[in-house]
Amino acid sequence: MTNRMHNFNAGPAALPAEVLRKAAAELEDYNGTGMSIMEHSHRGESYETVHYEAIATAKRLLGISDAYDILLLQGGASLQFAMVPYNLLAQGKKANYILTGSWSEKAKKEADHLGETYSGASGKDNHYSRVPDFDTIRTDATDAYIHLTSNNTIYGTAWQDFTRVSEWEAPVIADMSSDIFSRPLPVENFDLIYAGAQKNIGPSGVTLVIISKTLLEKTAAIAGDVPAILRYRTHAEKTSLYNTPPTFAVYMLKNTLQWIEANGGLQAMDARNREKAGRLYDAIDESDGFYRGHAHPSSRSNMNVTFTLPTEELTERFLEGAKNKGFSGLNGHRSVGGCRASIYNAVPLESCEALRDFMVAFQKKHQ
Amino acid sequence: MTNRMHNFNAGPAALPAEVLRKAAAELEDYNGTGMSIMEHSHRGESYETVHYEAIATAKRLLGISDAYDILLLQGGASLQFAMVPYNLLAQGKKANYILTGSWSEKAKKEADHLGETYSGASGKDNHYSRVPDFDTIRTDATDAYIHLTSNNTIYGTAWQDFTRVSEWEAPVIADMSSDIFSRPLPVENFDLIYAGAQKNIGPSGVTLVIISKTLLEKTAAIAGDVPAILRYRTHAEKTSLYNTPPTFAVYMLKNTLQWIEANGGLQAMDARNREKAGRLYDAIDESDGFYRGHAHPSSRSNMNVTFTLPTEELTERFLEGAKNKGFSGLNGHRSVGGCRASIYNAVPLESCEALRDFMVAFQKKHQ
Ligand SMILES: Cc1ncc(COP(=O)(O)O)c(C=O)c1O
Ligand SMILES: Cc1ncc(COP(=O)(O)O)c(C=O)c1O
Ligand SMILES: [Mg+2]
Ligand SMILES: [Mg+2]
Ligand SMILES: [Mg+2]
Ligand SMILES: [Mg+2]
Repeated sequence: MTNRMHNFNAGPAALPAEVLRKAAAELEDYNGTGMSIMEHSHRGESYETVHYEAIATAKRLLGISDAYDILLLQGGASLQFAMVPYNLLAQGKKANYILTGSWSEKAKKEADHLGETYSGASGKDNHYSRVPDFDTIRTDATDAYIHLTSNNTIYGTAWQDFTRVSEWEAPVIADMSSDIFSRPLPVENFDLIYAGAQKNIGPSGVTLVIISKTLLEKTAAIAGDVPAILRYRTHAEKTSLYNTPPTFAVYMLKNTLQWIEANGGLQAMDARNREKAGRLYDAIDESDGFYRGHAHPSSRSNMNVTFTLPTEELTERFLEGAKNKGFSGLNGHRSVGGCRASIYNAVPLESCEALRDFMVAFQKKHQ
Repeated sequence: MTNRMHNFNAGPAALPAEVLRKAAAELEDYNGTGMSIMEHSHRGESYETVHYEAIATAKRLLGISDAYDILLLQGGASLQFAMVPYNLLAQGKKANYILTGSWSEKAKKEADHLGETYSGASGKDNHYSRVPDFDTIRTDATDAYIHLTSNNTIYGTAWQDFTRVSEWEAPVIADMSSDIFSRPLPVENFDLIYAGAQKNIGPSGVTLVIISKTLLEKTAAIAGDVPAILRYRTHAEKTSLYNTPPTFAVYMLKNTLQWIEANGGLQAMDARNREKAGRLYDAIDESDGFYRGHAHPSSRSNMNVTFTLPTEELTERFLEGAKNKGFSGLNGHRSVGGCRASIYNAVPLESCEALRDFMVAFQKKHQ
């Protein structure tokens, strides 16, 4: 593991080196069972233990009460864009999508196929450089639900605080794909949270859903005639063993969550992630405008740091130089360009410091 | 790898030892890139090569022409139970489900949520012990499609031949979850084939879909207002990179398909699988009725060998004894009981011979 790359991929992304080492060591023979965890039946004891430990560890880390169920599903966050309205967008109601970036737009677009939606706030006019002020967001008690994206992976902005979403009367739903388990989270202020695992908590192929039992009850009337596989209740009733789960992805999820726990939990992740992001934002702020952050300082993400250089040509030279130095994944999303450093839980501080040093040196040379 | 269990799991199931060894060896550092294949972006060269090689190898093994697309999806075969009618069951049409076991029943039930279905043949009356005679199957040129299950994992029966399905005028759709890549397949007689990977071709978490481009065109009119994630066209247009694929599962799929190729392809798999199944069916046939096969000899599966013993008590003793001897996964599906040996591609002949020996010895002792 001495040759580890500086991995700034946006997802799938860096995993903890310890978690990979453990997976490699027991890949052919899991726990002395004479077979790989991938070869175990999902109805057998070995896998079931992994499955329920993944769920229990997630609950423990988030301090979740029994008022919530945790589901482990397939299909990525993109399937949740459809499952949410299938289960919650009743006829005659409108779903309220707060638009803070491309992913919230996509979520709304899927819901548009299934019912009525509107947008109670949008950052589109400021190029999604900030999350709307809480007081400017329109909501209504009759909204089918209010949907937000906690961290905007592409634009590098994030909701800073979730205290006041508890003021909303309608169910609150959040796509937390790119910041779940990166900081403490008041789950009790939400009714449903979903996240693809492939940024902070595992490989791609498994999606975590946290749903309040009260909301789950409500889905019965709305999703009655939706195919069973698309109903949250199906999966809740079968503890996510309705059909074959993505067993190896769940195993990696479990081990990654246990790594978070062993490393101090969400408070510790938050402190570390702030420090890591701080290194890069400092480099931007101290560059006299050579590096321009896309996010307004009040909306900065600690997961995705987005910036450009004075010219497109310099941006390209920067990206090429960085690549040659062993920094991976710094290209901005193909829809916006520029640079983006994704620094999820498993990215070490040293990688951020190495990138900061590279930024400073590059500026010196090219300014 | 000396302590490998005799793995008769029904899925997730045995994987080739060589494929597991390779995965373990390169888990922490894929191809000298300084990161795991799981940590690579799905938009980067390393993963894209894996992705397109998986598709190309599948096409090569099946001898598929460019008239078909291969899709790599999430959600298991169970999500296909819903995607098929979402994309193909037009209003005013009826889908025809040929019922040969629990999985075909489940497929029909999901379609019932979305439109009209009927059943042109059913083996329910004979406890799904045989696949209906071809000439007794009712079909209609106006059927939205005709759906069959090629191998019935739970009951241990299989379609023996697919020559005559080409006589049907409506599109022919097959769930081949438990026998795909176990024998040569006339893909040209089908319009859509789907299969979860977790029996013959990889771990759980990835589902293969083979769809004719002609059929794909037809879905445009039917699935126009279905969410994008549930439309086959979405995934075909983006070569299954519409959203984040289950990258590690695809990597294992690719390596398993390459293992099949290196071991002689589908003809060789078929010969080996017949030989393996033959060992167990011989033990049944030569037991003077001590072991009773569930499948009628004319419908026997070479993937799942199902049988019972003279009494439930003996069946239980057999299962317990087998477990103690290191045979894993021999319990029948919880819905039917009895014994089932699943002997997919990666199960070695030696495992079948060891089980045969155990069966013979058990009979001698308990008859
Ligand atoms: C915030 C957010 N939502 C949704 C998605 C889509 O996730 P998936 O590719 O798993 O469908 C992403 C992926 O990057 C994301 O960052
Ligand atoms: C023939 C068949 N179809 C469908 C399924 C369901 O597959 P999944 O669990 O991947 O949804 C199975 C699983 O055993 C099966 O054997
Ligand atoms: Mg975004
Ligand atoms: Mg509330
Ligand atoms: Mg069956
Ligand atoms: Mg035809």
